[in-house]
Amino acid sequence: MLDPEGLRRAQAAGKAVTVGYGGFRYVQFLHDFENVPRGTALFEDGAAVIYGYPAIGRLLALETGLARQFAAPFWMEEKVDGFNVRICRVHGRTIALTRGGYVCPFTTDRLADLMDTAVFEAEPDLVLCAEVAGPENPYCDSAPPFIEADVRLFVFDLCRRNSPRFLSGAEKQALLRRYGLPSVASFGRFEIGDLPRIRALLRQLDAEGREGAVFKEDSHRQRRAKYYTASGQLAAIASHVHSLMDLPPEYFTGRVLGLALAAEELGLPCPGELRQRLGAAWLDGLQEAIRRQRRDGRIARRFRCRFRSPDNARELIHQLKRTAGHHLQIVPGELYQEGELWRLEFERIYPSLNGLLSDWLAGRVVLD
Amino acid sequence: MLDPEGLRRAQAAGKAVTVGYGGFRYVQFLHDFENVPRGTALFEDGAAVIYGYPAIGRLLALETGLARQFAAPFWMEEKVDGFNVRICRVHGRTIALTRGGYVCPFTTDRLADLMDTAVFEAEPDLVLCAEVAGPENPYCDSAPPFIEADVRLFVFDLCRRNSPRFLSGAEKQALLRRYGLPSVASFGRFEIGDLPRIRALLRQLDAEGREGAVFKEDSHRQRRAKYYTASGQLAAIASHVHSLMDLPPEYFTGRVLGLALAAEELGLPCPGELRQRLGAAWLDGLQEAIRRQRRDGRIARRFRCRFRSPDNARELIHQLKRTAGHHLQIVPGELYQEGELWRLEFERIYPSLNGLLSDWLAGRVVLD
Repeated sequence: MLDPEGLRRAQAAGKAVTVGYGGFRYVQFLHDFENVPRGTALFEDGAAVIYGYPAIGRLLALETGLARQFAAPFWMEEKVDGFNVRICRVHGRTIALTRGGYVCPFTTDRLADLMDTAVFEAEPDLVLCAEVAGPENPYCDSAPPFIEADVRLFVFDLCRRNSPRFLSGAEKQALLRRYGLPSVASFGRFEIGDLPRIRALLRQLDAEGREGAVFKEDSHRQRRAKYYTASGQLAAIASHVHSLMDLPPEYFTGRVLGLALAAEELGLPCPGELRQRLGAAWLDGLQEAIRRQRRDGRIARRFRCRFRSPDNARELIHQLKRTAGHHLQIVPGELYQEGELWRLEFERIYPSLNGLLSDWLAGRVVLD
Repeated sequence: MLDPEGLRRAQAAGKAVTVGYGGFRYVQFLHDFENVPRGTALFEDGAAVIYGYPAIGRLLALETGLARQFAAPFWMEEKVDGFNVRICRVHGRTIALTRGGYVCPFTTDRLADLMDTAVFEAEPDLVLCAEVAGPENPYCDSAPPFIEADVRLFVFDLCRRNSPRFLSGAEKQALLRRYGLPSVASFGRFEIGDLPRIRALLRQLDAEGREGAVFKEDSHRQRRAKYYTASGQLAAIASHVHSLMDLPPEYFTGRVLGLALAAEELGLPCPGELRQRLGAAWLDGLQEAIRRQRRDGRIARRFRCRFRSPDNARELIHQLKRTAGHHLQIVPGELYQEGELWRLEFERIYPSLNGLLSDWLAGRVVLD
């Protein structure tokens, strides 16, 4: 899939660059290029390639969607609301790469708390595709309700170095069990005819405030599709209202429409409750933003996470600043020892919403 | 303000065109040009100019906003949720022009039901700037809750032909009283120090489901600013969800943010109720759209209005089709006599939302 000639073309086109993160020099794919997904990392002059995790399409209608996407039975797994990493062993060290192909200072630091890395003694070329989720994560403003503190790790796919292909569902389950790896809930293998059971599972996930499910065709085609519960759509709105002015408009309007479809699809019984939750998803964060703006003159959200090494905490701040772009500012807060770990606090500041609200609160008019 | 040379420049730039509507040939300003607002109409070779109604800026914060916009006391009037017309006499006929400068077949037809046009016998050069509002209007998907059927007319400004200036508040009140013209509620003349009373009036308007207020400086500067209640912001969302894919994104996100600010400004007491109402503003229309899509294969809203002359009803359909643009289709329905009037029914179809929903319901995935 990735030959030296393709690599040269990708580098010449600016799609792949040589970088140095986490003590490694490697080639990072900043964008999709030909068949190589964004986030792909080449270590050791191409001798070890960790392919990027591909984008998964979102279904808005289950019956037609599953029928259209899949030609064979499929696995159904929980979609956990966190951030995507690929965990692998390089030069004898176990590291986690972010979706974009950065060595993640946070996940790499905490790996030993999140899983038993002994799996890599027996299977050094394994790549674990996993979600890291919880209220004390440095990237996402939302977390599954069943994780009360810190973060947890959930493996959802396995592949091997130098291959973009995932292991089959059966191989994956066998390895997960053999090595006792933490993983997302798997609900089993289904066919289109099982739609009532699938809907019942999604209703249960929704009632528990969980984000959704991923469906994976049990075939060589490796087709996948995801589905958000109403809770998942609502969390996506609530956790992004601070970026209201920066995200593409379709982000919000698409989620509201998705929510309306999910409510119908899952037969959610109480329209009043759904209205209430959608109103809260929009308003709670914006009302807090207005209060912050008036009180502090700036709109910020506070993040907290824990590290084994304070150096990794500092490295995370560097990385967040490097990747934040103009629509986000990172303001480091305290870094202090707490038991055996180091506690990092920092704030994300949202300049666009801040600028708009400060104009409006200063009495400027809007013409529309 | 408008001289022959300026008119030639406007025509050369395509900002003004000669048109024929309602039996008149006149020059219509399709866009703002220099100091001439969009919607301006020149009859009789420039001998009678009806200036367009200027855009009024929206305040998001009352105290700073009123202080910043106004240097003198100001009038506060109700903002009625309808469509803007200018009523005037041309060649002995009383006509209503839309905001864009079309002769409105509907309002012109029904004028004698909406007001006593005898005012133009005494004041032939008067121009009445008014809102036409009610559940049976052909343009807006929302209406003030206090109008149960048909439409009503509310004059909110007066000017004279050939002048872009409004009459002063006192002159306007005198003429409105003298000729018994229906008008928007005027709450009186205020200063910045009256903010508690202004807020109390807005809270009352909001509680009654009314859209908002317009503030007009009582000076030669003719400055104006408007303010939407929470109810007004919610109606703006609810009445436009069918155009979700066509309006600029800021339309919706701005209204949600405006709602959060209005709730704080007016000290609305019950967050639960506000959440519920915002959820309903989004969901009720979209859920109906999904049902319509599944049932009829198309998303439509039905409009009903009444005419004195069936010819004007047909003319309205022509005009709606001409001005609808690609993101709206007009499908005429029945036209039949009902008592002394003719009842017209038609549907507005929303192709963008329809296309998106039909793709999604057919099982297409979305990548985001």
